[in-house]
Amino acid sequence: MSASSETTGRRCSVGIDFGTESGRVLVLDLDSGEELAVAIVPYRSAVIDRELPVTGERLPHDWALQDPDDWREVILRGVPEAVGKAGIAPSAIVGIGIDFTSCTVLPVGSDGEPLCCSERWRANRNAWPKLWKHHAAQPVADRLNEVALERGEPWLARYGGRISSEWYYPKLIELWLDDRDVYDAADAYVEATDWIVWWLSGARLRNASTAGFKALWSPDEGFPSVDYFTAAYPGFDAPTEKLGTEFVPIGTRAGTLRPSVAKRLGLPESVAVAVGNVDAWVTVPALGVDEAGAYVMVVGTSICDMVVHPKEIRLPGITGVVRDGVLPGLYGYEAGQVAVGDMLAWFVGTVAGDAEDPFTAYEGAAARIAPGATGLVALDWWNGNRAILADADLSGAILGLGLHSSPSEIYRALLESIAFGNRRIIDNFEENGMALHRIVACGGIAEKSPLTMQLVADTTGLKVSVAASSEIPARGSALFGGLAAGAFTDLGAAVAALKPEIARTYTPDDAAKRTYDRVYAIYRELYEVLGRSRSEWLHGLKRIRTEQHAG
Amino acid sequence: MSASSETTGRRCSVGIDFGTESGRVLVLDLDSGEELAVAIVPYRSAVIDRELPVTGERLPHDWALQDPDDWREVILRGVPEAVGKAGIAPSAIVGIGIDFTSCTVLPVGSDGEPLCCSERWRANRNAWPKLWKHHAAQPVADRLNEVALERGEPWLARYGGRISSEWYYPKLIELWLDDRDVYDAADAYVEATDWIVWWLSGARLRNASTAGFKALWSPDEGFPSVDYFTAAYPGFDAPTEKLGTEFVPIGTRAGTLRPSVAKRLGLPESVAVAVGNVDAWVTVPALGVDEAGAYVMVVGTSICDMVVHPKEIRLPGITGVVRDGVLPGLYGYEAGQVAVGDMLAWFVGTVAGDAEDPFTAYEGAAARIAPGATGLVALDWWNGNRAILADADLSGAILGLGLHSSPSEIYRALLESIAFGNRRIIDNFEENGMALHRIVACGGIAEKSPLTMQLVADTTGLKVSVAASSEIPARGSALFGGLAAGAFTDLGAAVAALKPEIARTYTPDDAAKRTYDRVYAIYRELYEVLGRSRSEWLHGLKRIRTEQHAG
Repeated sequence: MSASSETTGRRCSVGIDFGTESGRVLVLDLDSGEELAVAIVPYRSAVIDRELPVTGERLPHDWALQDPDDWREVILRGVPEAVGKAGIAPSAIVGIGIDFTSCTVLPVGSDGEPLCCSERWRANRNAWPKLWKHHAAQPVADRLNEVALERGEPWLARYGGRISSEWYYPKLIELWLDDRDVYDAADAYVEATDWIVWWLSGARLRNASTAGFKALWSPDEGFPSVDYFTAAYPGFDAPTEKLGTEFVPIGTRAGTLRPSVAKRLGLPESVAVAVGNVDAWVTVPALGVDEAGAYVMVVGTSICDMVVHPKEIRLPGITGVVRDGVLPGLYGYEAGQVAVGDMLAWFVGTVAGDAEDPFTAYEGAAARIAPGATGLVALDWWNGNRAILADADLSGAILGLGLHSSPSEIYRALLESIAFGNRRIIDNFEENGMALHRIVACGGIAEKSPLTMQLVADTTGLKVSVAASSEIPARGSALFGGLAAGAFTDLGAAVAALKPEIARTYTPDDAAKRTYDRVYAIYRELYEVLGRSRSEWLHGLKRIRTEQHAG
Repeated sequence: MSASSETTGRRCSVGIDFGTESGRVLVLDLDSGEELAVAIVPYRSAVIDRELPVTGERLPHDWALQDPDDWREVILRGVPEAVGKAGIAPSAIVGIGIDFTSCTVLPVGSDGEPLCCSERWRANRNAWPKLWKHHAAQPVADRLNEVALERGEPWLARYGGRISSEWYYPKLIELWLDDRDVYDAADAYVEATDWIVWWLSGARLRNASTAGFKALWSPDEGFPSVDYFTAAYPGFDAPTEKLGTEFVPIGTRAGTLRPSVAKRLGLPESVAVAVGNVDAWVTVPALGVDEAGAYVMVVGTSICDMVVHPKEIRLPGITGVVRDGVLPGLYGYEAGQVAVGDMLAWFVGTVAGDAEDPFTAYEGAAARIAPGATGLVALDWWNGNRAILADADLSGAILGLGLHSSPSEIYRALLESIAFGNRRIIDNFEENGMALHRIVACGGIAEKSPLTMQLVADTTGLKVSVAASSEIPARGSALFGGLAAGAFTDLGAAVAALKPEIARTYTPDDAAKRTYDRVYAIYRELYEVLGRSRSEWLHGLKRIRTEQHAG
């Protein structure tokens, strides 16, 4: 224990960001906002989408699982490492906050252990956590959407008129349909973020945000009726039993560290544990945003977009609007794009160049191409469309290809497709009365691809600021850890105290904007046709593909 | 001179096939049908589409030129080489026939020399031959189509309702618009095939086939009226002046070798020279086809499809129907696809693999993928669409892309796009009352890609036979050389005598056909939307690209 931290009363918080491939542990100084140390722990099994680790069983298409022991390793190895690197006394840590991908869900026994960690269930793929990008529940989502539309379910408007296969009920009902044994053995079927908090603190709580955004719950209206679920799936009559019915708001305290966990981490038992949060949403306060009109983008494997607003506007094409969902006291709106970094990694893996660092090489070559000069337009639906179509059965497209098309032009077209997809989402907000005046971005692609950020500015006509931190989600989690520990009077004070520096601001280029307006006009019509009026084309291709792989 | 050929009376013919990248000279034994020797002479300047050789001037987009001296080198180097290799006496050669790409056209002075070969005009790009795939005259073609439609021009139906930018008048009017000096200096503006015959024999003749297929002429109706041309381009009032007004049918004799040429080639002056022909059309008799119901495909850089029929049926979407155009006494119908081998070369050049022979590697990997299993569908419009849309401003597309899409899957999708494009053309013939019962194919891709041929069979449900010769066009030219020399009583006798062996027959697989019927149903709708009802999307992308490159 360091005497100096004792005497100065230094207050620090640990923020843990559980991503798709790894977990990141940050130690944040709650007074200076300084990032003292970071530990990164990759998941051993990463994304399990080919075969089950235990049995080698080949997974069906569109499956994506994770291993809870990989998550625990982030905590057990990462927290001591980060605290050690920070050079502070463990007693300086006053809080822990965490964020997780969502909707990543797992079946858990009454003892709080994930079913897949038990001998009994380990060899059964249905017992494993389904990662957010597990898309095999699309038929369930389709059915739930169909019945909700038929019945005119009032809650549907909160989700832009369509629910996603990535969400809670499609995954739960998929389990109920596929394997009643696992379903029945699960005492709870919970968001991973809540399970981590449960494991850290022993508090079996559900956060209200994921319940709102992913499990169709609202503080005013509760859950969809049992009638609705049984109309869609006769016999499925206990929709809330495994989720729970009581929810705690984000920004509150779940409890303190369990003694056994505190001991293994070398931290005081008094450390406050914040209610679980989601990787995207914690970035909003972490980026210093607490006002309407700012559009927050987390640009990484995928993009999550968030807007807060004092009023509830039921607009189509968003992934959700939840009161207190992102920031207490405001309505949080969420939208996003599924395949971003994923799609670029696919491109680099598919169109291999000779460059040692192909991303940098393509970024450089693509930056030298003028707007519109590729003659190409792409739809970034490499892993389906999240907003504004919420359809995992869509797929990507490139049009305008010719004998002259170069790899760099195709790469640029993919970056433009990210920017156009983003503009489509922004158009949707603005066409529904939510004016936006600035964009604030963070995430791996926001940091590493200035061209992507310039394209976002040039296509939307809005300034884009990128924060000078690679640890924005973990900063947000640490902020909530500090709030849970009582280090700030309220969230506003925490946001003001911990606002990060801006690394770079991208200003729209007028000439580029004019050219992109023309390309975007084509893009938007194509989007309507392939995504809506003739979506049976892409759906048909996927159906035939699935049948041929099965047969 | 070899005594044996004298005494045995051996009769041989030289066939010269002028392709896009090289010329091929074949010596054919007219009695046995045996291919005695082949000489291949690549063009030094190949396709001139980046810069003019003399000045280094950068060529505008969509330009494609050739150098007539490259063609002469094929004759001067290739003929002696082939005759030498054949081990026959030069006196055994009784005829020469040639075929050329079309519509490849050049301005020629009154002395018969190409303008671009003179000091005066060499540095002027407008004086050079425009290769068939020069597509810069698309605006002229658009204007000609528009005015023809407005005026209800009766000849338009012979060309499927639309003329192509590749043809004679778009290229001639482009020259007239761009450079009146070159236009006026040209005593003739002729098909390269006619110019070669002119150079070989001194006979300034025009063949009736290219006049019919490419220059809007018909033996019954002559040319479009001067009124039509002046309505489209006021001042352009002498449309036939540089083309000529008298045409000789294919299958006839132009004359004999000029003494100076005979001397340089080491051949007798008595060698008969056949009227010029076109690379695609000579394959029909060369493949042993002289009946309706057979569909001939020449599958190489592009695909040319030909059908002969006793009646004239005016069907949309073909590139032309010309009486006596392919075989004397029958109506010849032509259709085709622009980018085939070109598109595959683009793919291999863009998606570079590690394989030493990437074509073979991709062919093997793609062949192991089941029909429909890629989830992809592509439109093969990498260089526009020839049939059934005749629109050079269309461009290629791939739909159905996902994070799982592999290079081999994309490669297979491109092969399937060739097969679907072909089925679309066959559907068009059949929907207009021309039943087809077999396919006969030749060309580089037909020989080297069994998968492409199997896909053609599986998508159409027709048997596909591939001839056991790599020299089908040159065989056809040699056949016409023999006919010009009087070695056969008529064309039917020549076809029967020189019918080649079949190397392989591809039989449709019923299960594959059923799956491809489903993918094709999607393809055909997409084709209608991108190619017709919403063609402004691809047109707009090309327009923006062209402007951005110009600006």
